[in-house]
Amino acid sequence: MGTILLHNCRALLMDEAGTLLDNAYVAVDGANIASVGTTRPEGTFDREIDCGGNVLMPGLVNAHTHIPMTLLRGYGGGCDLHTWLNQWIFPAEDKLDGRAVRAGTGLALAELIASGVTTIADMYMFCDEITDEVVKAGISANIARGATLFAQDFDFQTYPACVETRELVETWHGYNQGQILVDACIHGEYTSRPDLWIAMAQYAREKNLGMHVHVSETQSEHEECKKRWGKTPFQILDRHGVWDTRAIAAHCVWTTEEDWALMAEKKVSCIHNPVSNLKLGSGVAWIPAMKKAGVNIGLGTDGVSSNNSHDMFEEMKFAAIIHNGVTHDPLALLPMDVLRMATCQGAQALGRRTGRIQAGYTADLILVDFDRPNLTPCHSVADNLVYSTRGSDVVMNMARGNIIYKDGIYFTLDLERIKREVSDYAMPLLFGAP
Amino acid sequence: MGTILLHNCRALLMDEAGTLLDNAYVAVDGANIASVGTTRPEGTFDREIDCGGNVLMPGLVNAHTHIPMTLLRGYGGGCDLHTWLNQWIFPAEDKLDGRAVRAGTGLALAELIASGVTTIADMYMFCDEITDEVVKAGISANIARGATLFAQDFDFQTYPACVETRELVETWHGYNQGQILVDACIHGEYTSRPDLWIAMAQYAREKNLGMHVHVSETQSEHEECKKRWGKTPFQILDRHGVWDTRAIAAHCVWTTEEDWALMAEKKVSCIHNPVSNLKLGSGVAWIPAMKKAGVNIGLGTDGVSSNNSHDMFEEMKFAAIIHNGVTHDPLALLPMDVLRMATCQGAQALGRRTGRIQAGYTADLILVDFDRPNLTPCHSVADNLVYSTRGSDVVMNMARGNIIYKDGIYFTLDLERIKREVSDYAMPLLFGAP
Repeated sequence: MGTILLHNCRALLMDEAGTLLDNAYVAVDGANIASVGTTRPEGTFDREIDCGGNVLMPGLVNAHTHIPMTLLRGYGGGCDLHTWLNQWIFPAEDKLDGRAVRAGTGLALAELIASGVTTIADMYMFCDEITDEVVKAGISANIARGATLFAQDFDFQTYPACVETRELVETWHGYNQGQILVDACIHGEYTSRPDLWIAMAQYAREKNLGMHVHVSETQSEHEECKKRWGKTPFQILDRHGVWDTRAIAAHCVWTTEEDWALMAEKKVSCIHNPVSNLKLGSGVAWIPAMKKAGVNIGLGTDGVSSNNSHDMFEEMKFAAIIHNGVTHDPLALLPMDVLRMATCQGAQALGRRTGRIQAGYTADLILVDFDRPNLTPCHSVADNLVYSTRGSDVVMNMARGNIIYKDGIYFTLDLERIKREVSDYAMPLLFGAP
Repeated sequence: MGTILLHNCRALLMDEAGTLLDNAYVAVDGANIASVGTTRPEGTFDREIDCGGNVLMPGLVNAHTHIPMTLLRGYGGGCDLHTWLNQWIFPAEDKLDGRAVRAGTGLALAELIASGVTTIADMYMFCDEITDEVVKAGISANIARGATLFAQDFDFQTYPACVETRELVETWHGYNQGQILVDACIHGEYTSRPDLWIAMAQYAREKNLGMHVHVSETQSEHEECKKRWGKTPFQILDRHGVWDTRAIAAHCVWTTEEDWALMAEKKVSCIHNPVSNLKLGSGVAWIPAMKKAGVNIGLGTDGVSSNNSHDMFEEMKFAAIIHNGVTHDPLALLPMDVLRMATCQGAQALGRRTGRIQAGYTADLILVDFDRPNLTPCHSVADNLVYSTRGSDVVMNMARGNIIYKDGIYFTLDLERIKREVSDYAMPLLFGAP
């Protein structure tokens, strides 16, 4: 790792003031940012990188996804949600094994890294394999084993998803100075029962873990919970102590004003997934109102099976304009609001010191080529990043102080091997002979 | 030009059946497609192109834009619509001259061509310069001089926008076997008066021109028209004969069921601009309902000043999922519906024989690199094109039988010269010294 000096760039710091630092020098020491300024720092560096006048910004935080589901990109399109899940997605997932999950994870990482993501929060199964691939790729991750509970009998000590969560925590939580954090997880209110909520919440408090939960993604989920418990999903989980730790609530499309007040009070972050919510017909989360209510908001792509991409720049554009459109207010969200969701606010949601270019923060940095026709002219860096940049405009990805991608080259992934594993192993396993 | 044989591709024909032809051979003779099939056609070809197993589809039709406004990308963000238009956009446009328009046009063409567009419908001013640049770049265009009328005195023979329209028609209409078509134009009901509507409609009928009009983009435009005339914009223009020719009605966000019935009857095409409508807070056009009502629907980016991109693949993704989201129906629009909007239906709107891979159609063809991580795996070509492809995945653009772009290289544009003209001439002219 050593020391690296990035210079000749326009650095969007993502500090409170929204500073854009022209002719910036950003020094990196090991996994962290050592200094940021407009004069060359003292001393020598193991490596100096001329950024060619391009835009340097914090790496993006994809705060809710299911990365192995990249294997299911575009699978089972053209049917309603129930049919899609039950006749297409679940049967394919039933056939997954660790090797296929590694292949899907590698494929997702290739897409994520090339489009500027340096941190993810993932919820899935085969988490040991996922984590191992993420560690090798070099980005940071909050890993959660999605836990459901339908049966009446439940023992936290022996229930498989809970056993796996504990093993994950023991093996990986805090690994490599926090590259990996393991979050506790309840898949959702509608896929589990209070026994799980109570035990998982208690375990999270004991181990000081974060919590990752799907909340009020669809109207039916939200309404059926109210019928079942007389409360919204957010509120019934609150009654069982689920939010008494750092927590991320994914989707929140149908949450209420009372939910938002409680989320703000408990410091629970909402993770907005506009593309998935639109594509599946779930609706549009009330993000501007949640923001006004004081809720911290991050951004995620959700799994590629319902997106069907891992491009956080695309996700930012959706987040930036969908609320203007449905509220008929061209100022509902501004570019800096959305950049914050995708960087510092996502970092806060995940309990991480990243998402800003500031001394002491993790050196997660990406470079965007502003010389391309689609980014010319540049009247506003923030506007161009949110409305005009595609993930493919990212030309460098530095994660935890390591350059893991530059000008189309991956330094920690073997893309050809991953593609072979997908086509020769995972595809036949899940979908039969080609 | 001569003859070209494209082979080793998966060709999405965009015929009625939605055929995907594996191992396709597509032969091009001059500006047209000569044959399509799965066996090698007889004879020899001046050039053969191995498509590497990638996806060949018709070039995209951007059916409503204002391409020189690319100079205003991201300009004046963060203010309401009225302030944005009056304090930022109009004062900048007032300073435009032909040379700056050429620069902005070139910049737009670079972005459009690289992301797979082969045909546009443009409405702006300095149309002679725009047309000249388009002709040199090699794509096809329907050109319209945006005509407004606020004054009481009006004479079609001397009114500047009408004089320019007639000169355009005389110089360019039908140029190079239809590469250029000139459309008659009324900017919008709210920016003009009946004298113009009557005269322009009559001129269009006499010359057998198409008609290009903004219709019911915003709620205030729609409601004020109803107050003024007791009719919707579409209906009051209909009363004046504006739709008695092939016509495109851009936006149609606030059009009514009665409007749709009339549009279907008169065969007027709606051009959907979801990104611009969302970003400006205009709303969401009722596209699935208009489709059911029998209206032909095309797709456009609108000007980059309100988008802020010219990427029709991005526009397709917005069109494909926004309606699912706001109607809570995951099947509101399917990928093939949206691909038709961006190809054959856009072509129909513009009165052109393009948008399909079929013998006798214009050889407007693009190749998409399906080997990239973001397009892997491929369970459905249509799903991957609409939900997962970015404009940057286009690796070849053939317009009217000429390969004008391949693997990042432009063959008809001098990108460096265009960028210099933008930075050294147009920017200082519009916005003062840097």
